[in-house]
Amino acid sequence: MHKRLFIPGPVDVAPDVLEKMGTQMIGHRTKEASVLQRSISDKMRKLMYTENEILLSTTSGSGLMEGAIRCCTRKRAAVFSVGAFGDRWFKMAKANGVPADKFSSELGQPTTPEMVEKALSTGKYDLVTITHNETSTGIQNPIEEIAEVLRKYPDVIFCVDTVSSLGGAKIEVDKLGIDVCITSTQKCLGLPPGLAICSFSQKALEAARQVENRGLYLDLVEIYDYIQKKDYQYPSTPSLSHMFALDYQLDKIMEEGIENRFARHSQMANYVREWANKHFEVLPEEKYASETLTTIKNTKEISVKDLNNKLAEKGYMISNGYGDLKDKTFRIAHMADTTLEDIKVLLNIIDEILNQ
Amino acid sequence: MHKRLFIPGPVDVAPDVLEKMGTQMIGHRTKEASVLQRSISDKMRKLMYTENEILLSTTSGSGLMEGAIRCCTRKRAAVFSVGAFGDRWFKMAKANGVPADKFSSELGQPTTPEMVEKALSTGKYDLVTITHNETSTGIQNPIEEIAEVLRKYPDVIFCVDTVSSLGGAKIEVDKLGIDVCITSTQKCLGLPPGLAICSFSQKALEAARQVENRGLYLDLVEIYDYIQKKDYQYPSTPSLSHMFALDYQLDKIMEEGIENRFARHSQMANYVREWANKHFEVLPEEKYASETLTTIKNTKEISVKDLNNKLAEKGYMISNGYGDLKDKTFRIAHMADTTLEDIKVLLNIIDEILNQ
Repeated sequence: MHKRLFIPGPVDVAPDVLEKMGTQMIGHRTKEASVLQRSISDKMRKLMYTENEILLSTTSGSGLMEGAIRCCTRKRAAVFSVGAFGDRWFKMAKANGVPADKFSSELGQPTTPEMVEKALSTGKYDLVTITHNETSTGIQNPIEEIAEVLRKYPDVIFCVDTVSSLGGAKIEVDKLGIDVCITSTQKCLGLPPGLAICSFSQKALEAARQVENRGLYLDLVEIYDYIQKKDYQYPSTPSLSHMFALDYQLDKIMEEGIENRFARHSQMANYVREWANKHFEVLPEEKYASETLTTIKNTKEISVKDLNNKLAEKGYMISNGYGDLKDKTFRIAHMADTTLEDIKVLLNIIDEILNQ
Repeated sequence: MHKRLFIPGPVDVAPDVLEKMGTQMIGHRTKEASVLQRSISDKMRKLMYTENEILLSTTSGSGLMEGAIRCCTRKRAAVFSVGAFGDRWFKMAKANGVPADKFSSELGQPTTPEMVEKALSTGKYDLVTITHNETSTGIQNPIEEIAEVLRKYPDVIFCVDTVSSLGGAKIEVDKLGIDVCITSTQKCLGLPPGLAICSFSQKALEAARQVENRGLYLDLVEIYDYIQKKDYQYPSTPSLSHMFALDYQLDKIMEEGIENRFARHSQMANYVREWANKHFEVLPEEKYASETLTTIKNTKEISVKDLNNKLAEKGYMISNGYGDLKDKTFRIAHMADTTLEDIKVLLNIIDEILNQ
């Protein structure tokens, strides 16, 4: 039996979108491929509120995160971490010999603008990475306030991981001055995993051109230059299946209306948080609670494993806590094409199980 | 209208395999995901005639090629090139600061065992890369004879690009002593692009552990260690869609019979070469001609573009020459699930067009 997924990715994919994953192949060096890939870029620009170029990468989101920190750090990177995915970004820097320092918040606490200001005021850094939405803790960082700080440091490249929020929360890339805004298909965009997407500013491009030893497959400059020269075709054979499905899903997103989509995510988040605070406790402060998934403190010390086993019998699946937070927290995602009605059904079933 | 593809990847994918690309998502941290990924590894080992571990990467074949040369070169790599894809491997080494020398054959000529012997006898190299099958020239290198040379240098890591041949030509990885044998889904395996696969020997693993600065997403050690620890789950979210389809397609390949599959590719290759030699000329010597695609010298100076336009009207597509060989050659692929009957139909149509 298929289990409806309320885990923070992969998400359930709509049947018509899944069908597009099965589109027959075309040559990746044809005009058709150019049209498809250009169409995706145009639509992604709208969803990201940006005029910057869009790069696609046949990788998970991690691929572009690694590409960004490796390619765009000239001097030293300041990596702000609020959990597993910030830690991974730091690990990527180290693994590529990129000078970097990590600034961690306590689990469940955000990256604050003060932390960013303090680091940047040293003058040591020319690149900052921020996790917008951290799926391990359910934190959504105060990106507007952080962007305010970045504005004072025009030479610093601003990289943001929006893997688990873009398409579910409003991220106005150009207004925020984000140079590299990274996401992937299997979260709020409502597609299978296998393709990563980023916006790439001219400032980031110019910075990256000064960096040697950028590698090739994950080199953002290589991708950028290639798509300029070859009308949106990619250096190596891309995942056309994901591109067919993404192009189609972006039409559906535009049909729903971008603002409506964000409002739906907010509604679901509010509903889950209200439920969580009634029975347990939401991990982050309300102000920093994610709009796309909720991490709940397991204050009643229930067995998350048992709960998930019972949910599985009914065809549902949520997530245990991540890493050190396993069993101490559990997570309910409200992403992509999930509706408030779906959430209500899920929470009713959880209530029934917990009341047994 | 969909055009039947006789280009060297992407290839046409069978409708039932395409349908598997539309399988609904599962959690990538579930037992189901472990079972799926282990099943693929077991079947790939059979197809590759190896006991070595199998690594999957959500990238094109280029991703694993870059990972292999970056991770496994301790001293210096000898890159043997017979065209575009050997050149790319060298470019990858340079882009990652990996010391490397390139040994190029003239276009249409193979890498010879003598060339490999001469390079290795200097003692300068601890890694060799060979393109088994080069789609730009239609060369299939004498891998058995090259493997004989490598046997004399047990400290050298032997990496082979079989992206455009594995699944269509017999490559006995263990017998040949190949340490890293790399392929991807969109050629002879008959799947959409978006997933790369390699076998990875213990010798390659031990070599790679001595190398620093291996990066993360394309680090073969990171992938190897993770799948050992987490029962075949991957460090970041993989392309589950490709995995569903690959697992299914590997069953179909076993059903056809591996040897039967290779025989079918040989038959198709012989038929195309015979046709080509009647009307034009096959680019490489018979002895080095690829079993999966044929590069044909355009001795009649036909307009390949016109031919392809006319083929398109009838729903077919072949490839122009690659890079410098554009218009001087053209290419017909006979890969994956293509049958001899398909090839006969295609060549009849080409005959009709050329006779007009």
